Amino acid sequence: MAGKPSRAECCGPVDGAALDSAALDEPLLNIPDSEGFLRQAMDILVEEAVKKATDAREKVCEWRPPEELKELLDLELRDGGEDESRILQRCRDAVRFSVKTTHPRFFNQQFAGMEPYSLVAGCIVEALKPSVYTYEVGPVFTLVEDAVLRKMMELVGWEEGDGIFNAGGSMSNMYAVNLARFHHCPDIKELGLAAAPQLVLFTSQECHYSISKAAALLGIGTNNVSVVPSDERGKMIPSALEELIQKAKGRGAVPFMVNATAGTTVLGAFDPLEDIADICEQHSLWLHVDACWGGAALMSKKHKHLLKGINRANSVSWNPHKMLMVCLQCSAFLVRDRTGLLQRCHSAQASYLFQQDKFYDVGFDTGDKSLQCSRKPDAFKFWLLWKAVGTRQLEQRVDRALAMARYLAEEIQRRDGFRLLMDPEYTNVCFWYFPPSLRNVDEGPELWSKMHTVAPVIKERMMKEGSMMMGYQPHKGRVNFFRMIIISPQTSRRDMDFVLDQIHHLGKDL
Amino acid sequence: MAGKPSRAECCGPVDGAALDSAALDEPLLNIPDSEGFLRQAMDILVEEAVKKATDAREKVCEWRPPEELKELLDLELRDGGEDESRILQRCRDAVRFSVKTTHPRFFNQQFAGMEPYSLVAGCIVEALKPSVYTYEVGPVFTLVEDAVLRKMMELVGWEEGDGIFNAGGSMSNMYAVNLARFHHCPDIKELGLAAAPQLVLFTSQECHYSISKAAALLGIGTNNVSVVPSDERGKMIPSALEELIQKAKGRGAVPFMVNATAGTTVLGAFDPLEDIADICEQHSLWLHVDACWGGAALMSKKHKHLLKGINRANSVSWNPHKMLMVCLQCSAFLVRDRTGLLQRCHSAQASYLFQQDKFYDVGFDTGDKSLQCSRKPDAFKFWLLWKAVGTRQLEQRVDRALAMARYLAEEIQRRDGFRLLMDPEYTNVCFWYFPPSLRNVDEGPELWSKMHTVAPVIKERMMKEGSMMMGYQPHKGRVNFFRMIIISPQTSRRDMDFVLDQIHHLGKDL
Repeated sequence: MAGKPSRAECCGPVDGAALDSAALDEPLLNIPDSEGFLRQAMDILVEEAVKKATDAREKVCEWRPPEELKELLDLELRDGGEDESRILQRCRDAVRFSVKTTHPRFFNQQFAGMEPYSLVAGCIVEALKPSVYTYEVGPVFTLVEDAVLRKMMELVGWEEGDGIFNAGGSMSNMYAVNLARFHHCPDIKELGLAAAPQLVLFTSQECHYSISKAAALLGIGTNNVSVVPSDERGKMIPSALEELIQKAKGRGAVPFMVNATAGTTVLGAFDPLEDIADICEQHSLWLHVDACWGGAALMSKKHKHLLKGINRANSVSWNPHKMLMVCLQCSAFLVRDRTGLLQRCHSAQASYLFQQDKFYDVGFDTGDKSLQCSRKPDAFKFWLLWKAVGTRQLEQRVDRALAMARYLAEEIQRRDGFRLLMDPEYTNVCFWYFPPSLRNVDEGPELWSKMHTVAPVIKERMMKEGSMMMGYQPHKGRVNFFRMIIISPQTSRRDMDFVLDQIHHLGKDL
Repeated sequence: MAGKPSRAECCGPVDGAALDSAALDEPLLNIPDSEGFLRQAMDILVEEAVKKATDAREKVCEWRPPEELKELLDLELRDGGEDESRILQRCRDAVRFSVKTTHPRFFNQQFAGMEPYSLVAGCIVEALKPSVYTYEVGPVFTLVEDAVLRKMMELVGWEEGDGIFNAGGSMSNMYAVNLARFHHCPDIKELGLAAAPQLVLFTSQECHYSISKAAALLGIGTNNVSVVPSDERGKMIPSALEELIQKAKGRGAVPFMVNATAGTTVLGAFDPLEDIADICEQHSLWLHVDACWGGAALMSKKHKHLLKGINRANSVSWNPHKMLMVCLQCSAFLVRDRTGLLQRCHSAQASYLFQQDKFYDVGFDTGDKSLQCSRKPDAFKFWLLWKAVGTRQLEQRVDRALAMARYLAEEIQRRDGFRLLMDPEYTNVCFWYFPPSLRNVDEGPELWSKMHTVAPVIKERMMKEGSMMMGYQPHKGRVNFFRMIIISPQTSRRDMDFVLDQIHHLGKDL
């Protein structure tokens, strides 16, 4: 008799005495009680984290050294809670002492600027707590992701394909390496690499560090990342790639993939995709294009030539959270394959999520393509922005950022004491500032050794003044230089002029 | 002469004619213009995505099949943009047709409930666009992450350690496998697995599928995941683990790690950590505890015994976005090691981020520990919540969720036609509903074959009615049953009673 069991199938009775039953009669948390707090917090958000944070008259950051900031923030977590007014003050403090990456004078990373539509979408996602693995739990966001992926593939030049949004470009690049390997040898998924030949992948010396992180993580080994020399502008040299592939084959290793970069991290260089695609076709290698940074140029009729040949790639990473200003994170991994390779490569067929006896088309359950389980619907932040401003406005923003970079480069060439590393191809503007004391020193090791110390000191002063932020670094034998990244349509020429004036102001005594 | 270069170092002059200089004179995007839109959007957020979404009188979902919803949402991305009122309507629609995972009657996943403090923190993060890789770019959030990790490690029972927040528990578990492998053989990072012995890891048959995804991704191979049998309650059988380790060694394979689960996905079972730790010590194996789901019990004096022995683990995954209701995602990976293993395992020393000549202690630049580059400051969402309610309130919530699960289990045992799979150890309550037509049928294949179809039909009706959501699935020879997950302090006994009444209402004719 199955109908009236009074005991659990395999265990003892439930211990009723353990319950404090009165505590279960009413909710412990009543959301309408929080409305006042929420509205005050949203006001802080708009006033402090949006309006004040993006006001050029305000500071980009209010620098505090770590030990001092620790004290100011009172980080300790205690047994008792704090009242709402105290928590609202904590919100204000968190905003106050954070770097304003949306400030028009933040040029430090490959993301910048405030995008109100994307922000609203991001906040809705925080409130709804969706996860895009099954249509049943994320109906709107599953469909939105599909629509955005299709449109991005169209811009890449594919009629069809597959894809997924990930928690950042490093993850998208890892997907690429894993998919290329699975395509090369699907057995590795089950058997592992212990019995496999020595797999080798190729990438330029200017590529993002996530490629070698992927090689380490995936058990390929960083020594099996064959580093292809780049030319003076930072572009992979195709003949060097060909040579390295031949050499690897010659020593019995097995090439399986080439990673080309469209928009390198430091110089903003674009690898010559057509030439690389020719080589990949000839050797039957998977071509991945890391267009995390440069992909935005596909929006522009004027600049999409930079990625000519990307339609021949097997996979592409493209981060709309970079040049297109979607709130962090928003990173698409696109695959030309339409045979379900992505799903076969990653699927684990969890029975509690991906039941096959559901009442709707389970083809909409996309979660088994992913390495993640819960996954945020990052595509929604891009979709709402795109709906609001349209493709043409996105194009205009990209064109304007490139024009602004050219203006800055011109200004650098025009001004005393500034020197470009090279004419920018994208919006990375790399340059040195020579303090007056070094302007008449002869070129040579002594000058460059002194120059190496200039950027760090100016950066320190810049942070402490809080007026702007940009990065610096050494690169391929060149001493520390500034790398300024231009993205946001909130900037104007005045901001470019300000930056150069300010560098001189901060460094003229050095 | 270095001082007055008028040309770029290695390239031609900037083409001034390419600029449309007037377009650069003024910002293309003026944030204060967006204030009205932002305030209206925040009002929609509070009214629709918070208050209405969590109102028990409203639906959990307004079900639409994929093709119909596609039409309703008008997903296409066009050349032109749309005005603000249209975009606000799109926000309302996105909320309307989304599943309300914060609704008090959403029991479908291992996350649920609305946490206003965490929501506010999440929205601030969306607005500020921080990334936690360098102190310089994320000063507040870098320190907050450190404080939260330390407190979580204290609860695990470690005096010190290391850790990082990741984009979900699957990633945290992948970190564990990678770190265990690196600890076993650091050379694999560079050399890869091609020359390595056959590495084997051990985990129970009830573990989360991310362990086998990690084995596939890391090149270990899913065949080298040795699946340890579990007992009737879903707990790993230590003697079976011991036997499998011996067998693996016997055939020349190299065990390197055991994954124990504290709170399994389906049954909510806790592996016996002390016994497993003994075995790991004896064989010098890395012990990882996947406490993504069950870690919250560490907050409770009453229930932390479930994880007794976790202090002996080498690493722990723990997702505060599950039982502790932090907005998705919030997943901590904790490591007992304090020698910098995490950093050595993952570091790539990118020169554009992790310069060593910075003016502050670069020990605060935590990004090189991560597989990601940009990384969201998820710890902040936990920190603000924790500050607001305090440890004792978090404890009370956990205790109450477990008490509520016991109340539901009691009610299931009390009612005609309901049967527990087993007495719940945590808050996964697994049960069958027998429609009246099947209550007097003899136990046997025919009954169970009919029972297998009951839960999917009730689930379909539940979704279409929109009154509540819970999952179902088959498991280890058991036919489809309901799995109800209890988390949110917004629920009361009335919601439990409602659920059982509703299942009977939806399924009594079957």
